[in-house]
Order: sequence, then structure tokens, then C-alpha cells
Amino acid sequence: MSFVCKHLEHLAGYVPGEQPHFPGMVKLNTNENPYPPSPNVGKALAAFDWQSLRRYPDPVCRQVREHIASLHGCSPNQVFIGNGSDEILSLFTRTFVEAGGTIGYFEPTYSLYSVLAEIRDARGKPFPLNEDFSCPMPPEDFADAFVWTNPNAPTSRMTNPEIIADFSQRFKGVLLVDEAYADFAPANCMPLAVASKNTNTLVMRTLSKSFSLAGIRFGYCIGPEPLIDALYRVKDSYNMDALAQAVGMAALTDMPHMRANVAAIIKTRESLSKTLSQRGWHVLPSATNFLFAAPPPTTSAAAIFETLRQEHVFVRYFPGKRTGQYLRITVGTPEETARLLDVLSRIGV
Amino acid sequence: MSFVCKHLEHLAGYVPGEQPHFPGMVKLNTNENPYPPSPNVGKALAAFDWQSLRRYPDPVCRQVREHIASLHGCSPNQVFIGNGSDEILSLFTRTFVEAGGTIGYFEPTYSLYSVLAEIRDARGKPFPLNEDFSCPMPPEDFADAFVWTNPNAPTSRMTNPEIIADFSQRFKGVLLVDEAYADFAPANCMPLAVASKNTNTLVMRTLSKSFSLAGIRFGYCIGPEPLIDALYRVKDSYNMDALAQAVGMAALTDMPHMRANVAAIIKTRESLSKTLSQRGWHVLPSATNFLFAAPPPTTSAAAIFETLRQEHVFVRYFPGKRTGQYLRITVGTPEETARLLDVLSRIGV
Repeated sequence: MSFVCKHLEHLAGYVPGEQPHFPGMVKLNTNENPYPPSPNVGKALAAFDWQSLRRYPDPVCRQVREHIASLHGCSPNQVFIGNGSDEILSLFTRTFVEAGGTIGYFEPTYSLYSVLAEIRDARGKPFPLNEDFSCPMPPEDFADAFVWTNPNAPTSRMTNPEIIADFSQRFKGVLLVDEAYADFAPANCMPLAVASKNTNTLVMRTLSKSFSLAGIRFGYCIGPEPLIDALYRVKDSYNMDALAQAVGMAALTDMPHMRANVAAIIKTRESLSKTLSQRGWHVLPSATNFLFAAPPPTTSAAAIFETLRQEHVFVRYFPGKRTGQYLRITVGTPEETARLLDVLSRIGV
Repeated sequence: MSFVCKHLEHLAGYVPGEQPHFPGMVKLNTNENPYPPSPNVGKALAAFDWQSLRRYPDPVCRQVREHIASLHGCSPNQVFIGNGSDEILSLFTRTFVEAGGTIGYFEPTYSLYSVLAEIRDARGKPFPLNEDFSCPMPPEDFADAFVWTNPNAPTSRMTNPEIIADFSQRFKGVLLVDEAYADFAPANCMPLAVASKNTNTLVMRTLSKSFSLAGIRFGYCIGPEPLIDALYRVKDSYNMDALAQAVGMAALTDMPHMRANVAAIIKTRESLSKTLSQRGWHVLPSATNFLFAAPPPTTSAAAIFETLRQEHVFVRYFPGKRTGQYLRITVGTPEETARLLDVLSRIGV
């Protein structure tokens, strides 16, 4: 006899990218930032009064929300902060999707969404990407809610925000635009989130990628007050701890540091993309901190993945009909990229 | 038109105790520890490599789980760590209670449970405490799941673990024993959680109270592997950040510090309880870091609460037929307790 809810009995759970620890390894498998966060983070931790940890944190993150609101030109009441984008996505499914309802997303995309639909006892409804991995326009009644990842993962491609704005206007349900990688892209949907006529669209960001803070859990989303208010009512009482609030604030007040890291990563991304293309790889145009790239057809992505792994160069491989030809390669430092290219050269790709 | 799930439309949400900030205030309203956490916490923060925050944290908290397992004499696979007990409670309702199912708890108890039942679209089923606020034995088929808070809040009373063990054996659903205050009590249910014959019982702890770490969010529960495994499959991918893992570990490896703080609080608790009793208050026997105490019948708890508030002495008041006669007073330092008694003297109670 099982005590677990029926719809969860066969749940496999989400499998995060592996977190190996080898000295000298090159870790390009979970889209982490190769550069450290702002020195302000170090200063904030050094200045933090650890004795104050005996007190509960601000349950609604007032100070950081005000700062985020000022960054995007909206009211703090339009800002929700979560324990990572993970928590926001889970709350999104529980707040805006009825049990038995449907959650739409593209295919392929971030594999967590289908797991979250299963956990919510909702039906995940994948909408296949075009042949070139660009996003087709989903029908306006495609699902009760839709998660549009832009730029998309693992494909790295960006959809023009005007197309998403058009969908937002016609879509009957709640749209969440997951902009985890938006700081690496030339355009984003934030104007859509803060627009006064917006009633159904949330735009989500994370500090895990561009702000180099995957180690704390800090995501936020922006949208209409009634939706934000609903998320606040459903969230855990104290979802953001005092340290995450302090560290997040420190990072978000040093935008030049983030932008400089992003510029360096984009430079490496373009150079890596060019080199791989010259060697016969098919590289999708990336608006993220990673590449989605297929080796020449004479070789196998799975085999290259394994060889790289033996050499302690970790990238991500997603088996499957459409993704199985590709590797997802996080853009690291120029040195890490050189190590990767070196191993690839040795095996003739 | 609302985008929010039907069962959430009228959800008020949980209201945490207020977090006032007045210089010189005496804050005895949210059961925080009046003493700082272990100095190890300060050392762990000072030694923490903030640059490593660019990496994701360990998604399953391997190191801290091993340590907690060694503290309680069980396997790490029997330990689940959550972003505060809050997260564990929410996961509990989603993992072990079907939508439309029932969640039992005593009345009065921690008011979050009924909110969580509502969020889960389940039915909260309160079971009234006895006249003296002791726990009666619930029927074995009372609900699909049951949360037994021991010692109970806001009443401060402990139920003998043997009684809970008896209920655990007969109960048909999953039992969660919320032991947030167990370190202040003479006995606890952990032996029940780690027993090899246990199939249906989780025992939950938090670092917020006895370990003086409300500011990070760190709760854990112990129980049979199949239940713990189910919680891991349903949780967010990275629910515990790297700092919380480091700080939690630092606190949990300094048990003498925690025990000394607890001993000091118990001493103050007994002295405050004695003084109030001598002044004609009805004080329930407390096994926690707070008192549940009713002023003499000639006065009103609500009025005393307001007067204390004016003097910046904050305690907690729960209106209602049974709780409205009482104040819940966190045990602070001897100095804070003296301030409280001083204000009470001035108004003749």
C-alpha cells in the first residue's frame, strides 16, 4: 500500500544536470556563469550580522522588491520574488492551473515544465518547434496556461518579443515568459510585463545565470498586480531567507558588473560558435550563455559527449529524436573553451 | 474574469506575526530565540567562498543529511531537508493528500495548517482539544493525513510520545509530527520516526527556534524511505541554497551551544511562569519557548495585548472563543521578561 497521491506514484522527478567535482575539470553542463558574482556580494556577506539570523526574514522581501521595481519601472506590487525560478514555476502551476487542466510549452524546451505539470496533476501539452527550432505561433486556446521560454533552452534561439506580445494579447490563459537567459539576448519581454494593459502575462528572471548566483536561489517575476497578489497568497510564509535577500540585493545594485560579465560571455560565445561552424558543426544562433550545436553528420553527439566526459569536460546531452543530434555547451571562459576545442580537435571534430 | 484557480479565489493567505522594528522594543511575538546562533555560524559565513555562489548548490544536501542522520541514528535516505518547515508542510499536503482529501489537526493549533489545506484544495478537519488544551485521541480514520504538533502551539503543552506512537500505529493515513519546539521539551517522537517498523510517520524539526536560525529557512523531517523519496521527487529542483546548507551544517555541529541556549530559556520560562501564576494568571504547563497564559478573569487579554503594544512590548494574541482569553508570550532574555513584567505591574496584572 502506498501513501503517495495516485498521480505521483510513477513520477520520476526532474533530473538536474550532474554536479561533478574533479580537480581541473571543465564544467559546461548546467549553464552556470564562469565568472564570479559582483564583489558587492562578498562585501554584503562580510557585513552581514550573523547574530540577526535568530530573527525571521521579511516575508515579502519589501526592500529588494522596491529595487527590482525601480530597475524595471513598475510598482513593487508587480514584483514577486521566489526561492529560485523553480519555486515560481511550481507556484504558477498551482495558482493558475486547475487540477486536470493543461499547461502548454514548446518541444523541446526546459524539461522541468512537463515534470511540474505531472506534479500538479495537470496535463503537459507540448507544442513542437519548427524544423529549425524557431517557435511557431500556438493557437489562442492551446492550453489553460503557457510557459514560453525566451530565449529557449536547450535550443538557445530567441523569438522576437513582438511575436510573444501578439500571442499574449490573443491567449485566453495566463502566459509565463521564462526569461532566464534574457540578459544574454538583444531583446526581451519586460515591456510587456509592466504595460498597464497587461492582464495575463508574467515575465520571469533569475539571478542564477547572468548574475552568477546559482548558489543562492533567487528568481523573480513581474506582471499584473492581481496575479502577483495571488502568488503571494499561495507561497510559503517565509520563502526567501535573510541571506538570499541580502545577497540578491547586493548583486542587483551592481548592474555594471553583470553587464561586463555578460559582454565577455557573448564575446566567447560568438568566437566558439564561429570556430565550431568552421569545423563543420551546425550551430544554432544563440541569444543565451550556451550553444546548441550538432557535430558533423559523420559523428555522433552521444559519442562526443562521452569522450568529453572521460576527459572531464562536461557538457549536456539530451537523448531523443530531435535533440539527440546536438550537444548543449555552456559558454565558459576563453580558457575553458580552448580546453573543449582542444579535446574536440584530438578526436577530429 | 479571474485567472486564479477557483478554490483559491477567496484565499486570505497565512498572516505571519508582525515584524516591528522599534529601537529598544521587546519582541516576544514570533517565538524567536533571544540568543544568537552558534559562533560557528559566523565562522562558516566568514569562511564561505562567495565566488563559489556562481555554481548550483547540491540539490539533495548530501553532506547535511548525513550529519542529521548521524544525530538521529538513521540513514541519510530517511532525511528530507526543506526551505523551512513551511516548505515541508506544503510538500506534505501535495504529496500525501489527494485534491478533495482531508487533513486533520487539533484545534487550536498552528494556524498555517488550515491555510495549507485550502491551498491544496483539500478539506482541513480540526479536532478540538480537551477543555484543558490537552490532546484527545483522534479516531484512526479521522482524515487522510494528520499533523500532530507536539508540543502544540499556541498552547505550549506536550503530549506524551507514547500516545502519539499509539495513534501512529492505528492511523490509516500519513502522520506528520511537527516538533518545532521539541528541543524545549522533556521528550519527543524521534524514536518513532527512525523505528524500522515505521511506515506512515514523519517527524519534523526546524532550526528556527532552538538553533536561533529563523533567518535562514531550514527544516527537516525524518521517516520511512518511501515517504522521504516521494518528497524528494515532488520538491523544487534546488530547494536549499548553498548558504543555508553551510549555515545549517555549522549550527548542527554545535549541539552544546543550542543546548545551553535552550537551558537558559527553560530557566527563564519557569521563572516567568511562576511569577505570572503568583499574580493570578492561568499559565499552561509549557514544553516550548513560550507561555500560553490567561490574565486574571477581571481583565481582558485583548486589552493587555494592546497596552503592551503601546509600550513596544510585542506578544501574540489570537482572537477566538477558546484562545481569546490567553496571550502567547515568547520567552525572551531575563531582561526582556523583566520589562514585560514591569509593564504588566503598572497596569495591575
